[in-house]
Amino acid sequence: MTQERTKINELAELGEFGLIKRVTAQAKIKNESTLTGVGDDCAVLSFPNKKVVVTTDLLTEGVHFNLVYVPLKHLGYKAVAVNISDICAMNAIPRQITVSLAISSKFTIEAIDELYEGIHLACTRYGVDLIGGDTTTSLTGLTISITAIGEADEADLVYRSGAKPTDILCVTGDLGGAFLGLQLLEREDQLFRQNPTVQPKLSGYDYILGRQLKPEARVDMRDVFKTLGVTPTSMIDISDGLSSEILHLCEESGVGCRLYEERLIFDPQVQKMAEEIGINPLVAALNGGEDYELLFTIPVNQHEKVRNHPDITVIGHMTRKEEGAMLVTTGGIQEIPLTAQGWNSLKK
Amino acid sequence: MTQERTKINELAELGEFGLIKRVTAQAKIKNESTLTGVGDDCAVLSFPNKKVVVTTDLLTEGVHFNLVYVPLKHLGYKAVAVNISDICAMNAIPRQITVSLAISSKFTIEAIDELYEGIHLACTRYGVDLIGGDTTTSLTGLTISITAIGEADEADLVYRSGAKPTDILCVTGDLGGAFLGLQLLEREDQLFRQNPTVQPKLSGYDYILGRQLKPEARVDMRDVFKTLGVTPTSMIDISDGLSSEILHLCEESGVGCRLYEERLIFDPQVQKMAEEIGINPLVAALNGGEDYELLFTIPVNQHEKVRNHPDITVIGHMTRKEEGAMLVTTGGIQEIPLTAQGWNSLKK
Repeated sequence: MTQERTKINELAELGEFGLIKRVTAQAKIKNESTLTGVGDDCAVLSFPNKKVVVTTDLLTEGVHFNLVYVPLKHLGYKAVAVNISDICAMNAIPRQITVSLAISSKFTIEAIDELYEGIHLACTRYGVDLIGGDTTTSLTGLTISITAIGEADEADLVYRSGAKPTDILCVTGDLGGAFLGLQLLEREDQLFRQNPTVQPKLSGYDYILGRQLKPEARVDMRDVFKTLGVTPTSMIDISDGLSSEILHLCEESGVGCRLYEERLIFDPQVQKMAEEIGINPLVAALNGGEDYELLFTIPVNQHEKVRNHPDITVIGHMTRKEEGAMLVTTGGIQEIPLTAQGWNSLKK
Repeated sequence: MTQERTKINELAELGEFGLIKRVTAQAKIKNESTLTGVGDDCAVLSFPNKKVVVTTDLLTEGVHFNLVYVPLKHLGYKAVAVNISDICAMNAIPRQITVSLAISSKFTIEAIDELYEGIHLACTRYGVDLIGGDTTTSLTGLTISITAIGEADEADLVYRSGAKPTDILCVTGDLGGAFLGLQLLEREDQLFRQNPTVQPKLSGYDYILGRQLKPEARVDMRDVFKTLGVTPTSMIDISDGLSSEILHLCEESGVGCRLYEERLIFDPQVQKMAEEIGINPLVAALNGGEDYELLFTIPVNQHEKVRNHPDITVIGHMTRKEEGAMLVTTGGIQEIPLTAQGWNSLKK
């Protein structure tokens, strides 16, 4: 109890404004569009010749992350990356973020510093300015709310609604890793709880652990599209699983699709971990989520431009709406309707 | 337990996307600067000839509000109003908001509808578009995170940093009401807990209750300044109490000030409630907060323009920094240094 009180007092002594100064001290403005950042009632921005894109995400302790095995620095980084990913899904350039935190009294200043270390690292990596936020106490767990702002020429913006019935369906990177990384962390956490002398067995799984703990937003793809001369007709980032995202593109574009199981490629660690826990890696890709890759469609006549790119896999094609959104199993044996698993956190 | 489960299932059946559709159905776009709102990875905005201002606030249950006596509709309205108030403090026009919610499983769909009723009401009142957000579960209380976006001509923007040593210090409306409204609600809640047959005595206090439960942002002042031909040199909204806000203006502008106790006017309900709980209404104004009035400075030669305006009170003047930030007590008897009470929520 005494220790707890000490921690609260440390924060109380610093105060809200002291805390804001401390965590924003290293937030140097990098972008022309940021006129003023932290320090007034509002930040002031300027986008005279661009469209402005805005997205926001809220992460809550116990629902989106477990502080038992998620390092705070990684959490700060990931909280930024998942918002930047939404900016990338519009084919826009990320420019600014605001960060609001509700922190429980058990947090020390050092813990907040660690969280912000990850936030600043992500700001540097993605070239965005931290322009504001709010910090308050929470009676219980940690909540992180981030809003990200980006810019793009109107002609470059890609929406969910532009897919045509003959378009090719593509995905960046590989899928299922983030979900299986989480399963691994959860499993080792359970074993440790049962027997605290057991050391967690995480070696050999660095790839899927990284996919879960430190996902990257695909800020590189905008340039890749430009270089390849490819113009996506629709795009979305994969936060809730491939099934759910494909269904969003189909619904918003008024089309159907065929997703080919045999086209999906899996990392060896994804295959190994899936086997260990007795699931098909396909299930991890379809319903796992948190991979933060980009799912997009291109006109069929641009197929040749992407087919040999190491970061892009063609996984299917769009169809007329009446043909439905179907998974075609390996060998073309079966067509199964794609279903979204919905919002898991509400079902618990 | 069964009832609890029913409520969770209602939300689970609707799902995140169903919930978003439900709560944003009535969000009709009103502003030219909103190109697309809810429904893609990002909203798309356009501000070709204006500066863009951005602010964000996070409200948590048990720290910022108590659902025992705060109706959800009022809470939704207030959560928007406090962000709009920050836009007003820049002398900008509010245009868009994003709303993120972390909701506990005890919430029914009806409760969320009620919260959004207040949010939509505020959007209508302030002319802003609801352009996005995020909804997730919380393991405990309700958290509301709102980001507001506004626009202004560069020449119209007012910062905290522009006050000069001879400027006149002014405030809109009257102060202390929100704090005393909260004291009244807390007192009646305590009495009710001790004896649930006691009816809360709230009659005759509608003004201070309204100031606490349904504060309004001063969106009117931008036009008032234009009409009077007044150009504030610095401005801030009063969210943390007059003392704290004056000190912000002094620090950011590098000036001192003299605040005259006798210039502060109080509503009769503020005086009555302050007397009942045995405090000076001045204390409620200086340290209470949540009044969401505007505090601003104007050049001394514009004094005549504001002195007879019913919504503006001249409460002091700025000085050179070396003269400090002082409260001059009634009759000029004493000069007391102004002190900020800091962040109360961290001290609890």
